[in-house]
Amino acid sequence: MSKKVGAKISKLEEERNRKDSGFGTATTSNRARLILPDGSFNVKRKGQSFSAWLNLYHRMITMPVFEFVLVIAFSYFIVNLVFAGIYYSIGIEHLSGIDEQTQFVSPFWGAFFFSSQTLTTVGYGHISPLGSLTNAVAAVEALVGLMMFALITGLVYGRFSTPSPKILFSRNILVSPYLDMNGLMFRMINERNSHLINVKVNVMMSRNEKDETGKLTRKYYNLALERDFIQFFSTSWTVVHPITPDSPFFKETPEKMAASDTEILIAVEGMNDAYSDSVHVRTSYLYNEFVWGRKFVPILSEKGTGYIIDLDKINDSMEASLNS
Amino acid sequence: MSKKVGAKISKLEEERNRKDSGFGTATTSNRARLILPDGSFNVKRKGQSFSAWLNLYHRMITMPVFEFVLVIAFSYFIVNLVFAGIYYSIGIEHLSGIDEQTQFVSPFWGAFFFSSQTLTTVGYGHISPLGSLTNAVAAVEALVGLMMFALITGLVYGRFSTPSPKILFSRNILVSPYLDMNGLMFRMINERNSHLINVKVNVMMSRNEKDETGKLTRKYYNLALERDFIQFFSTSWTVVHPITPDSPFFKETPEKMAASDTEILIAVEGMNDAYSDSVHVRTSYLYNEFVWGRKFVPILSEKGTGYIIDLDKINDSMEASLNS
Amino acid sequence: MSKKVGAKISKLEEERNRKDSGFGTATTSNRARLILPDGSFNVKRKGQSFSAWLNLYHRMITMPVFEFVLVIAFSYFIVNLVFAGIYYSIGIEHLSGIDEQTQFVSPFWGAFFFSSQTLTTVGYGHISPLGSLTNAVAAVEALVGLMMFALITGLVYGRFSTPSPKILFSRNILVSPYLDMNGLMFRMINERNSHLINVKVNVMMSRNEKDETGKLTRKYYNLALERDFIQFFSTSWTVVHPITPDSPFFKETPEKMAASDTEILIAVEGMNDAYSDSVHVRTSYLYNEFVWGRKFVPILSEKGTGYIIDLDKINDSMEASLNS
Amino acid sequence: MSKKVGAKISKLEEERNRKDSGFGTATTSNRARLILPDGSFNVKRKGQSFSAWLNLYHRMITMPVFEFVLVIAFSYFIVNLVFAGIYYSIGIEHLSGIDEQTQFVSPFWGAFFFSSQTLTTVGYGHISPLGSLTNAVAAVEALVGLMMFALITGLVYGRFSTPSPKILFSRNILVSPYLDMNGLMFRMINERNSHLINVKVNVMMSRNEKDETGKLTRKYYNLALERDFIQFFSTSWTVVHPITPDSPFFKETPEKMAASDTEILIAVEGMNDAYSDSVHVRTSYLYNEFVWGRKFVPILSEKGTGYIIDLDKINDSMEASLNS
Repeated sequence: MSKKVGAKISKLEEERNRKDSGFGTATTSNRARLILPDGSFNVKRKGQSFSAWLNLYHRMITMPVFEFVLVIAFSYFIVNLVFAGIYYSIGIEHLSGIDEQTQFVSPFWGAFFFSSQTLTTVGYGHISPLGSLTNAVAAVEALVGLMMFALITGLVYGRFSTPSPKILFSRNILVSPYLDMNGLMFRMINERNSHLINVKVNVMMSRNEKDETGKLTRKYYNLALERDFIQFFSTSWTVVHPITPDSPFFKETPEKMAASDTEILIAVEGMNDAYSDSVHVRTSYLYNEFVWGRKFVPILSEKGTGYIIDLDKINDSMEASLNS
Repeated sequence: MSKKVGAKISKLEEERNRKDSGFGTATTSNRARLILPDGSFNVKRKGQSFSAWLNLYHRMITMPVFEFVLVIAFSYFIVNLVFAGIYYSIGIEHLSGIDEQTQFVSPFWGAFFFSSQTLTTVGYGHISPLGSLTNAVAAVEALVGLMMFALITGLVYGRFSTPSPKILFSRNILVSPYLDMNGLMFRMINERNSHLINVKVNVMMSRNEKDETGKLTRKYYNLALERDFIQFFSTSWTVVHPITPDSPFFKETPEKMAASDTEILIAVEGMNDAYSDSVHVRTSYLYNEFVWGRKFVPILSEKGTGYIIDLDKINDSMEASLNS
Repeated sequence: MSKKVGAKISKLEEERNRKDSGFGTATTSNRARLILPDGSFNVKRKGQSFSAWLNLYHRMITMPVFEFVLVIAFSYFIVNLVFAGIYYSIGIEHLSGIDEQTQFVSPFWGAFFFSSQTLTTVGYGHISPLGSLTNAVAAVEALVGLMMFALITGLVYGRFSTPSPKILFSRNILVSPYLDMNGLMFRMINERNSHLINVKVNVMMSRNEKDETGKLTRKYYNLALERDFIQFFSTSWTVVHPITPDSPFFKETPEKMAASDTEILIAVEGMNDAYSDSVHVRTSYLYNEFVWGRKFVPILSEKGTGYIIDLDKINDSMEASLNS
Repeated sequence: MSKKVGAKISKLEEERNRKDSGFGTATTSNRARLILPDGSFNVKRKGQSFSAWLNLYHRMITMPVFEFVLVIAFSYFIVNLVFAGIYYSIGIEHLSGIDEQTQFVSPFWGAFFFSSQTLTTVGYGHISPLGSLTNAVAAVEALVGLMMFALITGLVYGRFSTPSPKILFSRNILVSPYLDMNGLMFRMINERNSHLINVKVNVMMSRNEKDETGKLTRKYYNLALERDFIQFFSTSWTVVHPITPDSPFFKETPEKMAASDTEILIAVEGMNDAYSDSVHVRTSYLYNEFVWGRKFVPILSEKGTGYIIDLDKINDSMEASLNS
């Protein structure tokens, strides 16, 4: 292999070894967070197709319960309104039973309630369709009702079955004494009573650095952990990055971190054994969420023949002088 | 690298090599079991958010069938009661048909049964709503009924589709002769007719030990197995930990085990091929569930052109003198 | 380490290296097939708990469509019969509308059809409940109907969503010339139009052998394959075990295979990309399903700008003289 | 080992090292694309069983929404027609209420609308069944309706829950300058707002080559990538194959590619964290979809405290002179 080819290859090797999180190397003047505290990516899409933008199923699945019920109730109202309009324009005399006994505000609302009885397939029958046209519309509406209901059932089950792990992370990441050196520490707890097992954690540091040409680029480093896997995530887990001389965090100061827009990216994956679902959770800590010289306070206690973990104490820490 | 740094690193290495199951190192005066026999973790949560504590879906999915039906029947009764109250307060004269022929105990129960006919969308029509207000309430109730039913359908399917492997474990873990040494043995069987494949077993021992400073801490050891994977889990599997001189169990006695609160933690994972679900099951044996000097009796026999496995014999064992 | 300990360990190593499929080593007089041609294990369970034996959900999911519909229709009939009995014993006079116009064979069948109208929530209303007791029974029946229907919906969806890959295997396994030696070959095709990817094959040979003490035991060998993974399983795949001098199949003859009850166990796993389901399929070939000196005929042809694969030709083979 | 055996083994090794995508080695006169741009395999099946060919569930799940609604509406119409025929042939006089007030075009349509009211379980009751036979048919129809509806619910949920990632690929694959050499580059974006993580890419090149005997066969090569995995697929990813002297693409020209029918096969897999679904996507580029001497234009910009990715620019590229 010629010398020139060798040089090319070594440049390629360097590029290959460069850690890339998937966010790329661009740095911009007012640096934005890469991962939001709720674990979503801080990226918006432009130019999506309408259906990709709408993503109705995803929205209906992830919106709050209250909003979900409201959307359904509103759709129900609108569909009834539309069918009431159709019955009304065919002629209210084709709905036998409206005039006689039912004391409606107006015949239109009679048509509206007949529509609701058809859509939900209640069909009391004190109002009933007269003639082929009105009967045909009612037959269509009943089918529409069943399909709407199939949709609602699907959405309700979708909301249930979408895994929603609730892993609590400590508000801050601490620089604490660790063994005879120091460590970067955050704590996490499974808030739910479900059993998470085979949990793996990956911690990355991202910051702006000047490359050899003096240009600012965003660099990524894996932070080696004391322990990146536990078999049973039953209590709390204090994840520790030991600040050895090899660590990219060695000799870091709050000032340098602010200047370089440091962000810690955290990805957790595990298995929820009840549903045999894999679980993926992310969070991040920005440079201003570091606390120096404190350590976490224990959170687990014994009671009777079992253990108690106190979720309210997840952020509790105490002063602790750092090793030099 | 300076000498001091080297020392720090070696301490870190030691900490990294320390096996941790996820339960931590705390030992307490009256030691509690880590994993309950049904495989759940012996940990309670305090300070959960209400929704995490309630975890309605999870509860409805995992409660016994009888209780599940009861909860639904009770909710049905309550919702009918509420709507009956609304119809009654609007005025019983707005439910045409109640007074004439239907011989109810009281008009309120007429409203109650009208409500049930609306909620379930039966809608006979011998009782029917009169006037816009009562009709509007009935329209809302029919929608509530459909949504309740969507919920029930989702829950019923959730109960079905949640994987519920039934792996039977032998009641005791035996210390038996094995080859020309001894082994720790327990037996497991897939009780269901489903096919479990690619099954892996992980066995850990946990016990209290004094560290160099004399403090009691909980230590964890992986127990090496004769075989920790089988491709087809079709019959029974006797899992064996050979007690070699390397084993942390070597020279163990019942007395030492009781003193050190020894617990064997077992995690099984596999694949249920019918539903392409991964399956995760746990159990544990406490020191008082060890039996010394017995071995399991075979459980598989041939019948015609197939094999029979007798689940009732899972605990059957016979005297067997241990190798020294 | 003492000499004795070393000997023990070497015996353990030998045991650890012994291949075990999960069926164990027992051989019996009239040897039965381990895996049935449909991929299920040839093992029956005795002493299962009633619920594990019944396994209602699994049965309802896996029974033929026709049987499934029959079970539902029969249950519908029975439930209606039971409720008809209740209405009848309360008194047919509490079902207003039965006597007047409806020309039933007998009042009991009137109660039966009223029951069916309640259970399905049709509720025409030409028959309607009179009095609190009959109304209460009807209210319960409507709830029962909704729950039965929730069950049916769950079962129907369960039947849909259970992955049912259809991988066709050639009826026989061929001993064919391969390169400048011979090979054991079988062929498989994905019958469905779905896309199977990342497909792995594992082939084991099981046969009875005399151990050093002269006792017959069942031995298992992995058969090394020319290729045990393909990324796209889009056409047909002829799986080849090259019969090298290392192969446990080297110098095998039909007679020796029959005498040793040889069985080839095959496990296939892959990924169905449409449902992101993993797929696991098994089959086996018994010694009498071997064919010597034939090779498979190609099955793929080109048509227009695409390829055609002919499933009917999966078993087509032609004479081919073996290499010596 | 004898010399001859050694030769055999070396031939086997060669065969084992041959890369095979699963499409086999056949080349034909007018070479067809292996993977269609939408990721499906360019292979048709002949001789499938009827049920495998029909694959009703798969079709209903994957057809466009509009077609799906049409199929359901059409089935609804047909089923009503069939039951209307049954009621009509039993005798229209067994449907009380048809003659009196309901002004139908003909009695048959009266039976049709009664059928629709029964099938959807609306059951107004202004038409009601008279006599045991008609009542029995109605009882059956109501059950059929419930089962049809269970089917629809299952299909609707199946449509929802089937993962449908939308990964956009650049229309062309570019030969661009890369570091101090050149690279093969294509770009991909996750169009949806869902979060894809742990994304792996595999790129293969397939082309016709003459083997030592002069026969054309199809050869497959893995193309080594600058980076074949990213943890967060949040923005766009430009996948790069560096054209090193080792690359099978080294010294390639458009003419040689056209002559050898070169096709680039791309398989992407990742994890959709919201549904914990694994995602598998494929595409391919044919020789005529290569563009030489252009490079992609950046697609990501900053806005406020977040990032914007512009999907419309996925194909935007600019002139760029290649390195020699």
